[in-house]
Amino acid sequence: MRAEIVSVGDELLKGQRVNTNAAFISGVLAGIGVQTGRVVACADIEEEIVSVLAEALERAEVVLVTGGLGPTRDDRTKKAVQQLLGRGKELNQEAYQNLADRLKKRGLEVSASLSDQAMVIEGSHVIPNTRGSAAGMIIDCGEQFYRHSLVLMPGVPSEMKAMMELTVVPHFAVLSDTVIRHTPVKTLGVGESTLAEMIVDIEDNLPTGTTLAYLPHAAGVNLMISTIGCEREAVDRDNRMVIDAIVLRAEKFIYATSEVTLEGTIGAMLSVRGLSVAVAESCTGGLVASRLTDVPGSSFYFLQGFVVYSNQAKHNTLGVPEESIETFGAVSEEVARAMALGCLEKSGADFAVSTTGIAGPSGGSPEKPVGMLCLAIAEKKSAMVFSRTIFMQGDREQNKLRFSEAALRELWELLRNGYS
Amino acid sequence: MRAEIVSVGDELLKGQRVNTNAAFISGVLAGIGVQTGRVVACADIEEEIVSVLAEALERAEVVLVTGGLGPTRDDRTKKAVQQLLGRGKELNQEAYQNLADRLKKRGLEVSASLSDQAMVIEGSHVIPNTRGSAAGMIIDCGEQFYRHSLVLMPGVPSEMKAMMELTVVPHFAVLSDTVIRHTPVKTLGVGESTLAEMIVDIEDNLPTGTTLAYLPHAAGVNLMISTIGCEREAVDRDNRMVIDAIVLRAEKFIYATSEVTLEGTIGAMLSVRGLSVAVAESCTGGLVASRLTDVPGSSFYFLQGFVVYSNQAKHNTLGVPEESIETFGAVSEEVARAMALGCLEKSGADFAVSTTGIAGPSGGSPEKPVGMLCLAIAEKKSAMVFSRTIFMQGDREQNKLRFSEAALRELWELLRNGYS
Repeated sequence: MRAEIVSVGDELLKGQRVNTNAAFISGVLAGIGVQTGRVVACADIEEEIVSVLAEALERAEVVLVTGGLGPTRDDRTKKAVQQLLGRGKELNQEAYQNLADRLKKRGLEVSASLSDQAMVIEGSHVIPNTRGSAAGMIIDCGEQFYRHSLVLMPGVPSEMKAMMELTVVPHFAVLSDTVIRHTPVKTLGVGESTLAEMIVDIEDNLPTGTTLAYLPHAAGVNLMISTIGCEREAVDRDNRMVIDAIVLRAEKFIYATSEVTLEGTIGAMLSVRGLSVAVAESCTGGLVASRLTDVPGSSFYFLQGFVVYSNQAKHNTLGVPEESIETFGAVSEEVARAMALGCLEKSGADFAVSTTGIAGPSGGSPEKPVGMLCLAIAEKKSAMVFSRTIFMQGDREQNKLRFSEAALRELWELLRNGYS
Repeated sequence: MRAEIVSVGDELLKGQRVNTNAAFISGVLAGIGVQTGRVVACADIEEEIVSVLAEALERAEVVLVTGGLGPTRDDRTKKAVQQLLGRGKELNQEAYQNLADRLKKRGLEVSASLSDQAMVIEGSHVIPNTRGSAAGMIIDCGEQFYRHSLVLMPGVPSEMKAMMELTVVPHFAVLSDTVIRHTPVKTLGVGESTLAEMIVDIEDNLPTGTTLAYLPHAAGVNLMISTIGCEREAVDRDNRMVIDAIVLRAEKFIYATSEVTLEGTIGAMLSVRGLSVAVAESCTGGLVASRLTDVPGSSFYFLQGFVVYSNQAKHNTLGVPEESIETFGAVSEEVARAMALGCLEKSGADFAVSTTGIAGPSGGSPEKPVGMLCLAIAEKKSAMVFSRTIFMQGDREQNKLRFSEAALRELWELLRNGYS
């Protein structure tokens, strides 16, 4: 089954909002064997929506639309669908009750303008909105469009996600006749072309129905192995075969062959061994701690973090010697090591990771340019501390992200290989 | 001038990558008065790319394409353009030199497969790649497509961004004949429909050429006021008039009428007054510190952060009394206040902000459900400490983000209004 996604909203065409909805929807559809053929973002203009939907319904069996169902004037999706299909609107009682209940909690009543959110296109299958007021719809578009389906959902991500999970996915899962398996191979510390050369013969001999894509990211490149077919067993087998071949070839760069994040992988490694970690951050400003604590259950192994931004905080909180800061500078391996050791002692953790560097845009010098990172990891058991310096290029935000990625990568390598 | 964006890559249709490139490009184009009419994401399939480009070139004077220029097999954009326009490829000397130089730094030579990155479509204006190897192109598509232009760029965000800024924007800025002004109105603590009701008459009487869009976010809603016209002065005047009217009406919810973030606004307020801040975080796990330090120059007012995830860390590092944790629980206003006071003392900052809550998915109870946040702010000068409890709904990631937003919002309100 082929789908297309239409995202309605001027904000997507002016750089004001990134289209995360389309990524979510296509990912969920892929899981039930529905392939997304195109994603189109278009303006809040009725004629434009009509023309985009008409084109998409020619090509795809199901067209999923987000945005334009809200109570404000720039919400035009329902009007466009009425025009396209020549249908009226009708009040949906359940949606009205949901709207009234939500407003009542805030001490409000249903006004004329708000009640439009409970109006649905005639002949729709209504998608309940468990997170907000605007009703969603699944619409059979009739003979005019080969009985293809139109799915209307709000643009608010939490509302759309709940609708996808509770109603849309179950509805289409039973109709899909293809099976797709996507498996990521997540790597660190290797470039796109180097990795491509390592696995050139595997790529030359992919089984029919299997494709391989390269997805570069801040600290390396991920691969995505996708296999499509009619039979679950054959699809899984072909997919697995390619994954196994790649792992055998490039194992030392691979940290996961599932949708787990690097911080999730590290969390699992720590949990299994009953080890704990603490962090001492300067240039990453709390980002390493925040990433580690993004993982559910991280309270089992993440003890605490110190964001020691000022020199005084480095000294007072972690006992970094003032002489070290004066002699070597705050951005130095000496200070990074002192931070890691201070953090280890204060926290009582098994591992302490530290970062100090220059995120920019100011603060750089010829010897210590913007993008310079010193990091250290101290281990309680071995009483060892390891440090290194890395240079990167990017703006402040990119540098913070890459710095945090580098720190997590070192911790991952240490957990995997020990001190070497 | 009307543009369309075409993003090539299977990863965009499988939920594996969010299309941030399109948001960046449309935002930059808006700045030079070029309106993006549509954004289309399509697969790495030659025929599909050809058909998407042909359709886009019918509608738009300039079509900007990202992705599919890399060295791997799934990179099909150049082949598609050759087919569409019936043109050959030629080696570009500068691009080849750039490629060779980059490989040399890594101790590699130019291989046959890699050299394709220096091949450009015949008759292209080459866009130098200052951040990577693949050359970009601006192509006049000839009479067949009304002399509309095609811009080809790599999908790697840093490479694409540098090309946009250094070459593409200057190239098209001189050709654009419309002027656009976008001004955001950023609000906190007010819902979409409430805000819409507050400004209904302003929205009814917008000047010709001016539109108003609602962009809901985690903790409220932003407005975007866009004015389009031919004359810079008139466009600016109409835009300003609407902004002023909205500010007058909804001032207490507005924290910015420019592209500054909440953390940037707070940073400016602290800088101007020579005040400093420190944070003590439990449930937000370093995210508040990370957001505050996303702002360039934040080292002038952000002293340090404590991520006290375990109860022991709360006690040992910040002196939170063990009795308070036992009696009231780690998630309580009592503990939040003790964290803020401990943080104030340890850091010496003028303000200390603390968070303790339950981000989920586990750890909730009927009395203290997932989504519960206790926060406190202590001020050195007044020796006052303020706390409150907020309940939210979301998954772990959303809760962390909303918790951090709530903490920053309270700090912002305090800086604006003082203790009340």
